[in-house]
Amino acid sequence: MGVKMMSNIYDNAYNLEKAIRESTEFQNLKTAYETVMSDPESKTMFESFRDTQLNLQEKQMQGLEISEEEVEQARNVVELVQGNEVIAKLMEEEQRLNLIIGEISSIITKPLEEVYGFDSQEEH
Amino acid sequence: MGVKMMSNIYDNAYNLEKAIRESTEFQNLKTAYETVMSDPESKTMFESFRDTQLNLQEKQMQGLEISEEEVEQARNVVELVQGNEVIAKLMEEEQRLNLIIGEISSIITKPLEEVYGFDSQEEH
Repeated sequence: MGVKMMSNIYDNAYNLEKAIRESTEFQNLKTAYETVMSDPESKTMFESFRDTQLNLQEKQMQGLEISEEEVEQARNVVELVQGNEVIAKLMEEEQRLNLIIGEISSIITKPLEEVYGFDSQEEH
Repeated sequence: MGVKMMSNIYDNAYNLEKAIRESTEFQNLKTAYETVMSDPESKTMFESFRDTQLNLQEKQMQGLEISEEEVEQARNVVELVQGNEVIAKLMEEEQRLNLIIGEISSIITKPLEEVYGFDSQEEH
């Protein structure tokens, strides 16, 4: 009983993974990432940007204060990154794929939302 | 080009949604939720538990302090809930489905992890 159903969930999840992997959007993201990584200057800049972001996110999640200096540093990194064409392209492709992942996520959590009546609570 | 690929992603996402909806695990969760909701005492208790949880989560995310009184109140609600058989059953079914959703999530984000090399960073 449950076994067949469960394998059906995982079969479908793997099919979805394959569809994502084969999509133009994913292939474009991959190419954009590889382009950034193959240029040493862009690579360093992007990694510095990612580290700064992760560091600030972590502090925020831990409820720690973010200093003026850190805000200033983050601002500088963002400015640098925005001026870099290949990184800008990568970030554009990231946004595109994040949008798709977000849509997938709302599709597959719909059954749960219906059980808990989030829709009816919010819309009526 | 992209259009066919994209619709393939969404077709697969909807198939996965259907598989979740039809799974024994989801049907059990739904039944458990309806059982709680059909008993006024359990319903009130569960809603109080949910409100308390959401309230504490929100405070935590905003970095606000949680008072002794609130901790005590949360403890009381959890104790009440644990003693209620139908709510305990619901929470068990929730955990089971959350596990599945977590597994689905790691399956479909695998392509992204491969691009960003999270695996190679963590495992080597």
